[in-house]
Amino acid sequence: MLAVTILGNNSAIPAFGRHPTAQIITTADDLLMFDCGEGSQIQILNYRIKRSRINHIFISHLHGDHYFGLIGLLNSFALLGRIQPLHVYGPPELIEVINLQFRISNTSLPFTFTFHPIEKAGLLLESKSYTVECFPTQHRIECWGFLVREKRQPRKINIEKTSFYDIPTSAFASLQAGEDYVAGDGAFIKNELLTDENVKAKSYAFCADTIYDEALVPIVQHADLVYHESTYPAALTEKATERFHSTSKQAATIALKANVGRLLIGHFSAKFEVIEQFGTEAREVFPNTELATEGVTYLV
Amino acid sequence: MLAVTILGNNSAIPAFGRHPTAQIITTADDLLMFDCGEGSQIQILNYRIKRSRINHIFISHLHGDHYFGLIGLLNSFALLGRIQPLHVYGPPELIEVINLQFRISNTSLPFTFTFHPIEKAGLLLESKSYTVECFPTQHRIECWGFLVREKRQPRKINIEKTSFYDIPTSAFASLQAGEDYVAGDGAFIKNELLTDENVKAKSYAFCADTIYDEALVPIVQHADLVYHESTYPAALTEKATERFHSTSKQAATIALKANVGRLLIGHFSAKFEVIEQFGTEAREVFPNTELATEGVTYLV
Repeated sequence: MLAVTILGNNSAIPAFGRHPTAQIITTADDLLMFDCGEGSQIQILNYRIKRSRINHIFISHLHGDHYFGLIGLLNSFALLGRIQPLHVYGPPELIEVINLQFRISNTSLPFTFTFHPIEKAGLLLESKSYTVECFPTQHRIECWGFLVREKRQPRKINIEKTSFYDIPTSAFASLQAGEDYVAGDGAFIKNELLTDENVKAKSYAFCADTIYDEALVPIVQHADLVYHESTYPAALTEKATERFHSTSKQAATIALKANVGRLLIGHFSAKFEVIEQFGTEAREVFPNTELATEGVTYLV
Repeated sequence: MLAVTILGNNSAIPAFGRHPTAQIITTADDLLMFDCGEGSQIQILNYRIKRSRINHIFISHLHGDHYFGLIGLLNSFALLGRIQPLHVYGPPELIEVINLQFRISNTSLPFTFTFHPIEKAGLLLESKSYTVECFPTQHRIECWGFLVREKRQPRKINIEKTSFYDIPTSAFASLQAGEDYVAGDGAFIKNELLTDENVKAKSYAFCADTIYDEALVPIVQHADLVYHESTYPAALTEKATERFHSTSKQAATIALKANVGRLLIGHFSAKFEVIEQFGTEAREVFPNTELATEGVTYLV
């Protein structure tokens, strides 16, 4: 189970009912959050996300539209008497802001709060069913993208077949791991005869804010779903480059080169009330593109 | 001209579509803002407040539901290329939070920004047509209420009468100031015969977050409109006291004792979806009470 719910799809300034960046990632074990723009806690209420289940929050960078909602969410967790531990990952200075704001309001958290400063690319979190890695993106300040990968599921025992061959249950673990069966008398049965493939492990890459950067291609290669920002339409390529942002066609070009399953574009400039052109332009390059739409959940 | 527009009427946690505290005060000269909870900039858009005209923002205290929206609003002002100077008034630690957040995002403001730490009760701002004073309230942390008073308007020259008595225009300034007219030959004409009273100077008191505190009575005495928090209904008086908040009936009692014109109650607990009872209870004590309602403008 891997799905992405969009809470905010707009760039720097809220406009036309669109909110700053925030996404909820549903995994088999946890709800994760990628970025937390202002108003995210209100969007969480609007879309009936079970907030107590969010236990890992990842902040890509310290431009306000990606984290100004975090302190309010933490504060509400405190007021609601949350007890579930919470982990926050982000640039090291983030904890200074949080600590200062809690100090001056005399707030103490009733739950275990752990801050994990992001200092280099690599594994941030490993759970039973998934991993989260971070990778650098090129923006005006230090910025990180995130890659969630489901773990490969063990193969499924085919009970009918194992009964037929009279395989002892003590052999099931090695069958699930993909090994062939060898009986005491040397009899040999191919794994594929005794087990079935499980659900394919899926992956989702969140490319945060970034200039057009082909260094992302090998990182997001073959991901099932990729979110890539598309702050500007193709006509404003120069402006995008100047601001370390990307256009619709640039986002789609990364998706095409990385041969990904599906592309989600967002972080639309507040200058545009109508955003359909972003999709139209991107689909000319990479047809399987969708506009990140607030309140919509994209199954990976 | 004095009016109050409610952007948020809820207490600590956003709930049931209600937002944390924020109010826009319209005066003849300026738009002022009292508190700036998370999402205020979105509410400003929703209610079509002309944001560039907001030039003085007053923060009562540093609980998040009263100021977490400020940094986002300042950030958006910066991104929008605001040029109008902006003044912010609040507890001294507020500027630490603002400076830290702008430092780590590498933001510089394109407009003149002045922070005024609030350190004692008294005059904070004097404009052509109004003054803003602050007064302490009793809450869990340092907290300030604000009192806006229109200046007394000069009397209006009655042109018909001044023509009839052939009064020289050189005498108009002293007539507007309320003086009687004395001609060169000693002739004497009472001011009231030559001028009319101007619009009455109005006043609005914002009592922030506070426990029931009769020390507020002389401060808000005779104010035309008073906002007093009413976090809890009367049945939860003990809880209100424990949390340094007030109930509906306590708010109304202050209004009654201070003989104010009209009472506005707000800061409703997130535990209550239906808030009509707050009004019903308060009106039993002080009939001229209204529930602060988001998006509504109350003319003082």
